[in-house]
Amino acid sequence: MSGIWGNNLEISIFGESHGRAIGVTLSGLPAGVKIDMDEVLVEMARRAPGQNELTTPRKEKDEPDIVSGVLDGMTTGAPLTALIWNTNTRSVDYSQMKKLMRPGQADYPGKVRYDGFNDYRGSGHFSGRITAPLVFAGAIAQQWLRQKGIVIGSHIQSIGSVEDERFESQGAVTAEQVEQLKSVQLPVFDESKRDAMTQVILDAKADLDSVGGIVETFVLGIDAGYGNPFFDSVESTLAHLVFAVPATKGIEFGAGFDITRMRGSEANDSYYYDENGQIKTRTNNNGGILGGITYGMPIVFRTAIKPPASIEKKQETIDIEARENADLEVFGRHDPCIVPRVLPVLEAVTALGLMDLILGRDKA
Amino acid sequence: MSGIWGNNLEISIFGESHGRAIGVTLSGLPAGVKIDMDEVLVEMARRAPGQNELTTPRKEKDEPDIVSGVLDGMTTGAPLTALIWNTNTRSVDYSQMKKLMRPGQADYPGKVRYDGFNDYRGSGHFSGRITAPLVFAGAIAQQWLRQKGIVIGSHIQSIGSVEDERFESQGAVTAEQVEQLKSVQLPVFDESKRDAMTQVILDAKADLDSVGGIVETFVLGIDAGYGNPFFDSVESTLAHLVFAVPATKGIEFGAGFDITRMRGSEANDSYYYDENGQIKTRTNNNGGILGGITYGMPIVFRTAIKPPASIEKKQETIDIEARENADLEVFGRHDPCIVPRVLPVLEAVTALGLMDLILGRDKA
Amino acid sequence: MSGIWGNNLEISIFGESHGRAIGVTLSGLPAGVKIDMDEVLVEMARRAPGQNELTTPRKEKDEPDIVSGVLDGMTTGAPLTALIWNTNTRSVDYSQMKKLMRPGQADYPGKVRYDGFNDYRGSGHFSGRITAPLVFAGAIAQQWLRQKGIVIGSHIQSIGSVEDERFESQGAVTAEQVEQLKSVQLPVFDESKRDAMTQVILDAKADLDSVGGIVETFVLGIDAGYGNPFFDSVESTLAHLVFAVPATKGIEFGAGFDITRMRGSEANDSYYYDENGQIKTRTNNNGGILGGITYGMPIVFRTAIKPPASIEKKQETIDIEARENADLEVFGRHDPCIVPRVLPVLEAVTALGLMDLILGRDKA
Amino acid sequence: MSGIWGNNLEISIFGESHGRAIGVTLSGLPAGVKIDMDEVLVEMARRAPGQNELTTPRKEKDEPDIVSGVLDGMTTGAPLTALIWNTNTRSVDYSQMKKLMRPGQADYPGKVRYDGFNDYRGSGHFSGRITAPLVFAGAIAQQWLRQKGIVIGSHIQSIGSVEDERFESQGAVTAEQVEQLKSVQLPVFDESKRDAMTQVILDAKADLDSVGGIVETFVLGIDAGYGNPFFDSVESTLAHLVFAVPATKGIEFGAGFDITRMRGSEANDSYYYDENGQIKTRTNNNGGILGGITYGMPIVFRTAIKPPASIEKKQETIDIEARENADLEVFGRHDPCIVPRVLPVLEAVTALGLMDLILGRDKA
Repeated sequence: MSGIWGNNLEISIFGESHGRAIGVTLSGLPAGVKIDMDEVLVEMARRAPGQNELTTPRKEKDEPDIVSGVLDGMTTGAPLTALIWNTNTRSVDYSQMKKLMRPGQADYPGKVRYDGFNDYRGSGHFSGRITAPLVFAGAIAQQWLRQKGIVIGSHIQSIGSVEDERFESQGAVTAEQVEQLKSVQLPVFDESKRDAMTQVILDAKADLDSVGGIVETFVLGIDAGYGNPFFDSVESTLAHLVFAVPATKGIEFGAGFDITRMRGSEANDSYYYDENGQIKTRTNNNGGILGGITYGMPIVFRTAIKPPASIEKKQETIDIEARENADLEVFGRHDPCIVPRVLPVLEAVTALGLMDLILGRDKA
Repeated sequence: MSGIWGNNLEISIFGESHGRAIGVTLSGLPAGVKIDMDEVLVEMARRAPGQNELTTPRKEKDEPDIVSGVLDGMTTGAPLTALIWNTNTRSVDYSQMKKLMRPGQADYPGKVRYDGFNDYRGSGHFSGRITAPLVFAGAIAQQWLRQKGIVIGSHIQSIGSVEDERFESQGAVTAEQVEQLKSVQLPVFDESKRDAMTQVILDAKADLDSVGGIVETFVLGIDAGYGNPFFDSVESTLAHLVFAVPATKGIEFGAGFDITRMRGSEANDSYYYDENGQIKTRTNNNGGILGGITYGMPIVFRTAIKPPASIEKKQETIDIEARENADLEVFGRHDPCIVPRVLPVLEAVTALGLMDLILGRDKA
Repeated sequence: MSGIWGNNLEISIFGESHGRAIGVTLSGLPAGVKIDMDEVLVEMARRAPGQNELTTPRKEKDEPDIVSGVLDGMTTGAPLTALIWNTNTRSVDYSQMKKLMRPGQADYPGKVRYDGFNDYRGSGHFSGRITAPLVFAGAIAQQWLRQKGIVIGSHIQSIGSVEDERFESQGAVTAEQVEQLKSVQLPVFDESKRDAMTQVILDAKADLDSVGGIVETFVLGIDAGYGNPFFDSVESTLAHLVFAVPATKGIEFGAGFDITRMRGSEANDSYYYDENGQIKTRTNNNGGILGGITYGMPIVFRTAIKPPASIEKKQETIDIEARENADLEVFGRHDPCIVPRVLPVLEAVTALGLMDLILGRDKA
Repeated sequence: MSGIWGNNLEISIFGESHGRAIGVTLSGLPAGVKIDMDEVLVEMARRAPGQNELTTPRKEKDEPDIVSGVLDGMTTGAPLTALIWNTNTRSVDYSQMKKLMRPGQADYPGKVRYDGFNDYRGSGHFSGRITAPLVFAGAIAQQWLRQKGIVIGSHIQSIGSVEDERFESQGAVTAEQVEQLKSVQLPVFDESKRDAMTQVILDAKADLDSVGGIVETFVLGIDAGYGNPFFDSVESTLAHLVFAVPATKGIEFGAGFDITRMRGSEANDSYYYDENGQIKTRTNNNGGILGGITYGMPIVFRTAIKPPASIEKKQETIDIEARENADLEVFGRHDPCIVPRVLPVLEAVTALGLMDLILGRDKA
């Protein structure tokens, strides 16, 4: 099992990169949620490849085809299923992929896991393309959350060694700023870093190589009291979903790994009543979550995204049919950096995780 | 909901720090697993507080009282429940805790989450003490895994700014080395760092303050093919459980956040056939997991543990009954560092997560 | 796996008939539910054996020992665990049970299922005694439901061939009548049937044999709109739980099997507005549920309970160690009829199922 | 939530009667299962309406469109999704359905449950048409089970008051007999009853009315040791799924409700070693299940199917917009009896339930 997640809002994903379609079913969506399809398409376009020189050339329109669960633009309460048809599945020669295990990809573990029956064409079900249905689902969740005043945003924290400023240093970030971040290709707080980041990507591409980076995601307007101790903590929920996003190798909340070098007196975020009588903390080293539960400050986390494994540079690997070492050169699917396209995916899974927790909380 | 986790092996935890007992039920344990109680007790002693100057003075014997699921020292296949009775719940004055929200603790979000009905005595159900049943459960899982040749170990990667070497740099780590690491108080690869780490903890304690650190956990002897793409990936499973451990603020697999500064040609772990015809990778930047599935190299991850929030140093906070800012001084429960005691907890949840995935895999 | 059930309210049961204790953990209970322990004990006494000549002589006080999740008589929102200690586990010779498979019991399938490691003493985990924790849990759920105006009752529909009238024929049943039914040993609508039922039980007992019967359970005061189509229908939820009660062999809702002999025009319950403008149906052949969802009329279902398998009469069976046919005579645990003691169990699981569905509904 | 079921094999259904498509996702299917599409189509044709005078005239080809999870005719181990496109959704006037609540249908409870946002066209998601994807899924499960020697069959136990013989009276039923039963329109053991059953249906149809009946389902070749005590018992699992099938009002295993009139000495199925040293029982009153676990005899259960609620006869109901009583006449969708078409649905869910339990068992 692997394709289904959720306690209160259940998400079931399916599809292969070069199969007929990919898609998602959402079960447990409340009835009467109005779906703004234009916004959904904007989110999906942010993730879609092939749009510029910084990404893989595969072009997919990624238009969701809703086949159930919506009537007159509103959710019916029944399972909502949307498909995205695969159109760009040109018939290349995949015979190499059956025997040459691409390093850094799921080819080899997938082959073992599924006794050789896995769809090996273009990573099959392991493809990052399966994140498109997640973005679709997350777009709906974000519309539901926004009605509760909750807004999710993100920026590129780093590409390679080029670093943006942190959310923590920005003071109050507004919903308008979040919109602004969503509208650009390399969203950063410190715009002076954009050119350097672009250059890092182009340099890697010129070398037939790729680069990774860090994404910082944040949630504004979330009240105290969502989440649970232990297994259904906010961190457990979000980390579970974030590690479901291919290429993720690390996640940290609030001050994250840096908190290990603080003392308790510094790490503990002091509470105070602000001028409106609202409970706030002076710092937010705990990233909005204590005991697995929100405390009313923004949720903040950073995700480490590895460089794409799909490079054109020659690599060493094994030929699993001949059972011998071999060289590998793959052409045509080179992806120099997925970090900008991962932002909407991380926002999407954050929305899905929070919606699940909030639906669970509302019931008590 | 929060106290239950698992797909194939279900774990249900319960209890409060100052209630009558804490405990755990394991459902889905295969029948016929022999339980070595001496080993279980060794694991639990590694976690128990009160044993030396580096930790909180609360003394608990932490002896598990198995009330079901075991007959003649073997699991029966029925749910196994073990209790740990709370004995050191001296009747201090907890009235302060009802109104003064301790920074860095779950007092405030817990109060909101449970409408003020939560057990506020000594963190109640949010207490790190609830990790004792997890260690008990994990000790059984580790015994089951060892029969399959799988061994879980860990060392302290850092205390404050004092860093140990990484697992990656150690060459082949043996099961004997793991045993050795388990037998000492501050397990490190580079033993020259132990004194400095001890000093960091004692300095913080002298200042009525606390320190955090990083733990590196690794899994030896795990075959390729365990785990699943997306939602039930090994990373999702382990991260979910690791963030259920109080004080965790980050997790990274393999090269983790450092991988974001590598290029793909470096990050991709090249496969090769070793002299025995086994498939290996030359590096292990992906920490033993690709596409959510193991590839036969050790699983490696690091966990960021924040400094304990329970400090005796004076802190600012709020009085939630008077609805005003207030100062807080807590005495008698000061814990300068939990990192050494977290090691067995992280090993335990790793064992539980892997056992769940392996039970799920065996069925296909 | 088997010991855990629930989506929104999770129930985890454990224990063996002759182990140290049996018990239950409730996870997902809302905080702030006041627990009336006197009422809980009344429910548990209704189920407990050994009280009169109509039942097995095993005497157990069945007093729940709450070890977590309750503070000052109110639920805290954390997992609530209660134990019932086994006191009457006199050390008889169980060696027979290891080899002579009692007909109608779980001895043989249990031995196969658990590779011979199951606790064979007095049915072990398969014992009907494990329903005691369910009654405890259900008593709390019933208190929660009653605050929403929902009352669960039941009566004996039949013992052997002696039949009571049906709920359907009673007109409006009141909460007071439900209380009255709970207060007697053989609760029936037509009290003239009680003596005949008693006699059927005593006759069987005199023959060292046993008898079964049918229980009718009903839910008053439940609004329209709870439950879901398909997999989480009210019928699926309640049937799932009812078949978890040992000795159940059938369940039917509303007119049940009789509806198969009606025509649609008769079976369809016509809607009308009553004098208060409330939507009602003129008949209730669908037992309060359509499309898996309540429609505001009482939920009604009947459960077939088989005669207890534990009889003293000589029976044919196999000796699984000698691998040959054998005779079996068991003395001292003879139970002539469990029907009266099953009523509170069925009410309990009904309460747990509805509470789970209602908690799920409230969130939307 | 409602559209997802399963522990080891997860099934997610979606779609509305008059939406674009209905479908199902199977997650957890083992890799390498060969799919015989001809057999799948045979099963689906057994369920499809419009084929003869005994059923509703709606004609749907019900051809599954597999979009993921299958490569070269074999399952890949990734989620398998199949759609069935709705073609016969002629645009009738459904405005009546928005206000006139059809008796015996989900119109009213569905409207309350989903706050009026449910798809009301032709029952929407509540339509029996959603059982088509279940038959598709069950056909795959049956192919997997057959490789393990497990065969599922069924016959019509009764239509109205016309009764067939029971499975129990047939002696050994063979796989060939099962094939034979699947190949006819009204499968019965006693073929002399077929004409009478047909006449009952035609009579009801002539009266613009409908009739119900009972289906008996049985499982041949299932070994002892599958299933679990309590919540994941075979009965709980199968009953859960059977009550997910629209129109089901009752289920009984083995002797079912009749067992309540037996004594224990009769109800207990005596074990013996047969001439091949196999463990058998002389009777099968417990329907192949004890303690929730199979004991190696056929699983047998009967399901009560109510007469279709869709009749053309005039009925009383309410106009929920005008808030007054009203008459209802519906033309064109009259279905006189669904019993013959329910057989493949019940076989399908039985297969899905058993496959889930067997996958769960294999792991131990």
